[in-house]
Amino acid sequence: METEKTLLKTDERIDDLQRNNLKIIQSPGRFCFGMDAVLLSGFVHAKKGDKLLDMGTGTGILPILLSAKTECEFLTGLEIQEESADMAQRSVLYNHIEDRVKIVCGDIKNAENIFQRSSFDVITCNPPYMIGKHGISNEEEPKAIARHEIACTFDDVARAASALLKPGGHFFLVHRPFRLCEIMLTLSQYKLEPKRMRLVYPFSDREPNMVLLEAVKGAKSRMTVEKPLIIFKEKDVYTDEIKNDYGF
Amino acid sequence: METEKTLLKTDERIDDLQRNNLKIIQSPGRFCFGMDAVLLSGFVHAKKGDKLLDMGTGTGILPILLSAKTECEFLTGLEIQEESADMAQRSVLYNHIEDRVKIVCGDIKNAENIFQRSSFDVITCNPPYMIGKHGISNEEEPKAIARHEIACTFDDVARAASALLKPGGHFFLVHRPFRLCEIMLTLSQYKLEPKRMRLVYPFSDREPNMVLLEAVKGAKSRMTVEKPLIIFKEKDVYTDEIKNDYGF
Repeated sequence: METEKTLLKTDERIDDLQRNNLKIIQSPGRFCFGMDAVLLSGFVHAKKGDKLLDMGTGTGILPILLSAKTECEFLTGLEIQEESADMAQRSVLYNHIEDRVKIVCGDIKNAENIFQRSSFDVITCNPPYMIGKHGISNEEEPKAIARHEIACTFDDVARAASALLKPGGHFFLVHRPFRLCEIMLTLSQYKLEPKRMRLVYPFSDREPNMVLLEAVKGAKSRMTVEKPLIIFKEKDVYTDEIKNDYGF
Repeated sequence: METEKTLLKTDERIDDLQRNNLKIIQSPGRFCFGMDAVLLSGFVHAKKGDKLLDMGTGTGILPILLSAKTECEFLTGLEIQEESADMAQRSVLYNHIEDRVKIVCGDIKNAENIFQRSSFDVITCNPPYMIGKHGISNEEEPKAIARHEIACTFDDVARAASALLKPGGHFFLVHRPFRLCEIMLTLSQYKLEPKRMRLVYPFSDREPNMVLLEAVKGAKSRMTVEKPLIIFKEKDVYTDEIKNDYGF
């Protein structure tokens, strides 16, 4: 049986995910998952028996959370950075979910060669939000790859999702609102039709800082925009939805 | 001097716009402006000296309101239905704003021949929201043309706006959120880049029922999504923003 001692490396810690006693191994010096990943996990719908792929899984937050939140049969996390993929794999072992969750180290740009085309029911992605690389040093690279479009662009993400989804399959993502139009255009270009959107507002009187999107491969154009997801009801006080549904 | 008696026809009434003592002639049997037009008038930015065109102006609510809310030099309203255009023209006379506001009876699909290309700084439109015509009778036609894409489609609207706007000119519109993706695609196709968006939620915990959009001709892709515009704070009680900014 895997224990903390055998699985944890220097500078790493184990965090409780507040869900089904699940834990995740993280390294604060590298990259820790954010609220965006947790909100995306609550936005995803998946059915019993579904095969799910999370592209750019980092330390595996989405497949680990979704193993508890959905009845997916198999969940795969694809991650380009070896160290992150290794941490994700060790978290899978630590949680004893290796029968359902598999971590693969590989490049989204090469995903069509790693997996079978049209083989997933659901694909999720919390991609890098920022365009370009502005003088990032080597030490900053692990965080930068997760945040900036260094290793892949949104076009790469959408192309891979379209290739790997079954017809009628669902693509769930979180991104920044300032790129909304470009994202919709790119999704449409790859026959991923935006069907559902929810904007995340930090406060009810502030601009949204995240957008959650669901696109369906090959669907017709008509979408639902959901009620606002508001994070704080006042300074440092989460709204009831954030407390109840996301365990913050 | 034009008076109520000389300007008003049977079945028509004069409504107070709660702004600079402006009035509008409406006929309840035909079509009365809705909150969408008023919210759009608050979303529009126009500079001193601008030339503005409102496409599908109906009874002229937008040019009449915007004559007070902006410092536009000239405002033109284009309307396909003769009776509506005639009512708009009489409202212009009643308000004594004929030096700045002109009403033209004509078809959006023919707008490129009615006006000079690249001649407007600002174009506004509160287009029909619904796709197709589902067994609408003749008596219902005046309302139906305002609500359904009978006389023109959104593609016609975007094409005309793109042709008539100067480079860098601004296009402001209100529409239904369920068509958001299609709208963004169509705008982009005509080089009208969505730059600003605000969703209108009837209540803070409900789906939005309108979307306000600003597109700029020839701009680069990057947009601002604004704070939510919420109509009611509780049943029958408007939020402060709706009361203070829109005079409801």
